[in-house]
Amino acid sequence: MTTLTNTRQVRIEWGDCDPAGIIYYPRYFEIFDASTAHLFEAALGITKYRMFKELPFSGFPLVRTRAKFTRPTRFGDDVVVDSSISFGRSSFEIAHKLSLDGALCAECEEKRVWVMRDAEGRLKSHPVPEDVRGKFGV
Amino acid sequence: MTTLTNTRQVRIEWGDCDPAGIIYYPRYFEIFDASTAHLFEAALGITKYRMFKELPFSGFPLVRTRAKFTRPTRFGDDVVVDSSISFGRSSFEIAHKLSLDGALCAECEEKRVWVMRDAEGRLKSHPVPEDVRGKFGV
Amino acid sequence: MTTLTNTRQVRIEWGDCDPAGIIYYPRYFEIFDASTAHLFEAALGITKYRMFKELPFSGFPLVRTRAKFTRPTRFGDDVVVDSSISFGRSSFEIAHKLSLDGALCAECEEKRVWVMRDAEGRLKSHPVPEDVRGKFGV
Amino acid sequence: MTTLTNTRQVRIEWGDCDPAGIIYYPRYFEIFDASTAHLFEAALGITKYRMFKELPFSGFPLVRTRAKFTRPTRFGDDVVVDSSISFGRSSFEIAHKLSLDGALCAECEEKRVWVMRDAEGRLKSHPVPEDVRGKFGV
Repeated sequence: MTTLTNTRQVRIEWGDCDPAGIIYYPRYFEIFDASTAHLFEAALGITKYRMFKELPFSGFPLVRTRAKFTRPTRFGDDVVVDSSISFGRSSFEIAHKLSLDGALCAECEEKRVWVMRDAEGRLKSHPVPEDVRGKFGV
Repeated sequence: MTTLTNTRQVRIEWGDCDPAGIIYYPRYFEIFDASTAHLFEAALGITKYRMFKELPFSGFPLVRTRAKFTRPTRFGDDVVVDSSISFGRSSFEIAHKLSLDGALCAECEEKRVWVMRDAEGRLKSHPVPEDVRGKFGV
Repeated sequence: MTTLTNTRQVRIEWGDCDPAGIIYYPRYFEIFDASTAHLFEAALGITKYRMFKELPFSGFPLVRTRAKFTRPTRFGDDVVVDSSISFGRSSFEIAHKLSLDGALCAECEEKRVWVMRDAEGRLKSHPVPEDVRGKFGV
Repeated sequence: MTTLTNTRQVRIEWGDCDPAGIIYYPRYFEIFDASTAHLFEAALGITKYRMFKELPFSGFPLVRTRAKFTRPTRFGDDVVVDSSISFGRSSFEIAHKLSLDGALCAECEEKRVWVMRDAEGRLKSHPVPEDVRGKFGV
């Protein structure tokens, strides 16, 4: 089994930080959510926007997450986010590690489900398409 | 011509503030955007969600805005937002005044257009429905 | 041992929602972070801003959190957040339950540490003051 | 007079968009605020964080802004932001133009003041330091 890992750099901005001068932690979840989209973009070669247009796909909502914050980051920091994925049938798990100058600052695990809209427009879980898994080498 | 004014109280939260300890100004635009929705809710008696379901309505995107910030606010402040509206044919203007303990802190003007989706799903401007204007007494 | 529970109502706004039409989950963490501040405000009778002024207190940063999302919420929903706390020596845990019309939508657990700035301005863990624990009845 | 212009690319993310599927406009103000910081970083060679450490500087709060939104952008779009500055004595104005594939989507003007904290910790306007203006060639 091969799992793809994607790495991207993110600048922590002034507006991401709170009166303590460090990142306001909900911003980490925004960074991790975008990192999941970028991991799929790296594997599939299309943006999340095009996934909606070109795949049997209506989103991959989060069902649970956990995160651990070990060192604060602050505005001006260029952090690195490493994201890796492992697939279930109609769900997948992502692990994100966010570090600064090689030191781990935050870790997050996500469980998400692949969903499609049914005839009534309701989001229902759906097997991850074989094509998609194939692009990840699984 | 009668124009409806709506007033609501908003608590400024820790997460709305930046390392200077005062509100990060994009949060004001979130507050004003929600205040516009609350003004319509006050007049129509239905939430914006129900406006999509029950009216010829696909949104009221902002086309331009201007704002002036005179006194900072900070977490723990309970500010008051007064919003008033005046209608054009397929557009309207909103003025928001945000104050703390009676002192004006920020002012904002918005111009928005009433839109509907056409057959291809594109957003097009559309006259504000007579029923809607009627609820505002105009 | 008595632990205080605080309950507050929160309106989910248009700007909290994503292109799927449901809440963008990092907004839940903003709601939970504010709910923790409101729980302390309910017990202590002062806002978080005044806690900085009046107590040996430089924040209660999150060290870890976990959350589970079971039903989506959307703009216009008035959700209820119940938050309860249990204290360690220099840390505490908060459990939040977010529900809509009595149905549980999201749950979150937080572990936070009480911190103070040392002489160099660095945040260091510090025992939760007895006065503070007393206000919670523990 | 030479004024420096800085250009940067920004990815619009899923979490920046609202239920209409397009960017939620307060996110533009976050992008513009960060673009102002990046313009100073380009001219001075130091991040805003280091500006606080190394310059007579306690921030450049916004006093007024105006913006015009002409075409929507959506998640997956890589937009370009061009920012240019002109200086007054203790204030400056920034103009941002945000475009996608060469087409202008949003424009914003900001007026900001250079501030320093006085002995009581209050933010007061202060002339833009000569060194700073010099780095911009003015």
